[in-house]
This record gives sequence, C-alpha cells and structure tokens, in this order.
Amino acid sequence: MISKELIMEDLKRNMTQKRFAHTLGVMEIAVALAKRYGVDVEKAQLAAMVHDCAKDMPQDEQLNLARQFGILLDEISMAEKALIHAPLGAALAKIKYGIEDPAILRAVKVHTTGDPKMTPLDKVIFLADYIEPGRNFPGVDRLRKVAFEDLDDAVIMACDSTIKYVIEGGRLLHPRMVEARNCLLLEKLKRGEKKWGG
Amino acid sequence: MISKELIMEDLKRNMTQKRFAHTLGVMEIAVALAKRYGVDVEKAQLAAMVHDCAKDMPQDEQLNLARQFGILLDEISMAEKALIHAPLGAALAKIKYGIEDPAILRAVKVHTTGDPKMTPLDKVIFLADYIEPGRNFPGVDRLRKVAFEDLDDAVIMACDSTIKYVIEGGRLLHPRMVEARNCLLLEKLKRGEKKWGG
Repeated sequence: MISKELIMEDLKRNMTQKRFAHTLGVMEIAVALAKRYGVDVEKAQLAAMVHDCAKDMPQDEQLNLARQFGILLDEISMAEKALIHAPLGAALAKIKYGIEDPAILRAVKVHTTGDPKMTPLDKVIFLADYIEPGRNFPGVDRLRKVAFEDLDDAVIMACDSTIKYVIEGGRLLHPRMVEARNCLLLEKLKRGEKKWGG
Repeated sequence: MISKELIMEDLKRNMTQKRFAHTLGVMEIAVALAKRYGVDVEKAQLAAMVHDCAKDMPQDEQLNLARQFGILLDEISMAEKALIHAPLGAALAKIKYGIEDPAILRAVKVHTTGDPKMTPLDKVIFLADYIEPGRNFPGVDRLRKVAFEDLDDAVIMACDSTIKYVIEGGRLLHPRMVEARNCLLLEKLKRGEKKWGG
C-alpha cells in the first residue's frame, strides 16, 4: 500500500475541490463514529479517504474501467450510472493505492446502496458519507444526533431518506438498499426492539 | 370451476361487509380498466372477485394454510403477515373455487406487491385494488385519472405511493415492489419515454 499522504495528494489532484472537501468531511465523521462504536479507526479513516476515488471520472470512463476490471454491473447500475463509482472505487483502491484489506474494500463497495449484513465498518462509512458537515438536507441534524446514539437506527433513517428521495425523483431504486433496510429492521424485530401486528 | 354466483355467495358469507364492498369496487374498476386496455374482461372480473378471498381469515390460519399448501414464504412475508393473503388467495381460488386459469391465479398472487414483468391483467388487478371507489388517500383522484390514460404510469405511481407509505410507517418493504417499479421504469427508458443522466 502506498502511504496515506501520497493517496491524499493523488485524490486532491484528481478530485474537484468540492469532492475533496466532502472526502475530508467523511473522514472526520468516520473517525468519530469509529471511536464511538469501537470500529478500527485506521480502517475507517482509510475507507473514508478513498470511498469516492472513482466518482469524478467521466461516467463513460467509469463504465469502461468497470468492464475492464470485470465488475458485474446489474441493469439498475447501468441505468443509474452514479451507482458505478462505489464498486469501481473499491477496485481502484486496490489496484491504484494497493489497499488489500477486504473489510475496507467492502465498505467502499457498498457505501452508496448499503448491503444486507452490513458490518459496523460498512455502516460507519455509509453514514459518514450521509451526514458529513457539508451535507445539507431536511432532517440531517436529527440524523447526525441519532448516528452517535444508535448506529442501526441511523442507517435505517438514512435508507428511509434516500428511498423517499429516489422515489420522488422518479428514478430507479436499487433493491439492495431496501434489502439493507429490511435486514436491519428484521434484526430489531428479532431482538424484540420493534414490534408490529403484521 | 364453480359458478360466479356461488363464488360471490361464498365470499359474501366469509368476508366482512367492508371487504365485500371493497371486492365489488375492485370488480367494477377491473372491468372498466380491462375494457380500456383490451384485457379479457371475464378474467379481470374473476381475478378481482377472488383477489382478497383469503384476507379475512385470522393471520395464524393464513400462515397454517400457506404452509399446508406448500407456499414458500420469504422472511418479509413472515414478518409482514398482511402479504400472505395474496399467494394464499391464489391457492384458495384454485382449490376452493376450481379456478385453473394460470393468468387469473397469477394476477391474484401478485396483487399486493406487484412483480417484475407484470402482465396487463396483473396491472389491471393491482391498480383496481388501489383505486376502487372506496379508497381514499392523498392523490387517489389523480391516480384514478392516470389509470385510464397510461396503465404503466399508473402502476408506477401506485408503487411510489405504497413505497413511501411503507417507509413512513417504519415497516418492511417487499423488494418485489421495488423490482416491479424498476422494471416498468427500465421499459420506459428503453422506449425512450424517460431519460436521465445517471
């Protein structure tokens, strides 16, 4: 793996100013959440650092690279090309920066749609991306509060918010996000924290 | 198959008054939509007639019967038991009323969550259930109008409305509804009726 300093230099060179500022925000919150929930801080910082490393490439280039790397893209990701940067980012983090840790690569891969059976690190990156200081949407302050109280509740709230946003925009919704949310709700049901009549 | 008259008698005996009135409403709208879109009117009427034939059973009984009939229930349907009546209704329509037509049984089976690759009959029953005269929710009048203008647009709108309702209720969302909606949106994209930048 090349050093964090060199990765940061490369990101700064290749990202828009806005994206780089976002990346710094995600790193800050990912570290804070990792400390709060006993997640490896180094891994959280590194995953946050590279999570959007593919996002500022032109989308056609993203698609070509994804094909070269043998990333299987489903029909939803082919139509909603903004989804490609997450699995592509994981592949680039490995190839370009030499990051080999599967837990970090997985967190980068699932940071946009979430995933059933998310690890605590996955949840930290997913949430940090959602609530970093540069984000501004209705309910973000409430979500920032919940994120430090209950990690799963915060991930469910972030999914709820994204699902409604995508539906209202008339866009395709990746079923993986619904599965991620269902999985967390089912775990709460099994723990007896949530009840409903059916 | 036993006669429609006998099926209606049986439904009236076994349903609450409210459910029977809903069934009559769904039949009325299903017939009107079938005429509008060139769907077999007899099939639409019969599918609408029996679509909720299992819904007024106690949920434990629904679950037991579903198991007896070998209906595979996923984890979402086990937690959101209101979903069971649709596949169970299709099984009962066959066993109790002797309805053998797979197109009718399929429309009953998928009437709650929808399904990828819905047939026109599936869409007619799904929508009629949603907009029958007894229904009352924000946007229902607009949906009633669109239902007779563009069947797919109306199904997408009904999915949008249900997805938001389920999310706001903090309940599990069946991924099949998201897949049904995605499938219709992707078809519109392929026909060039819908565009987005990704």
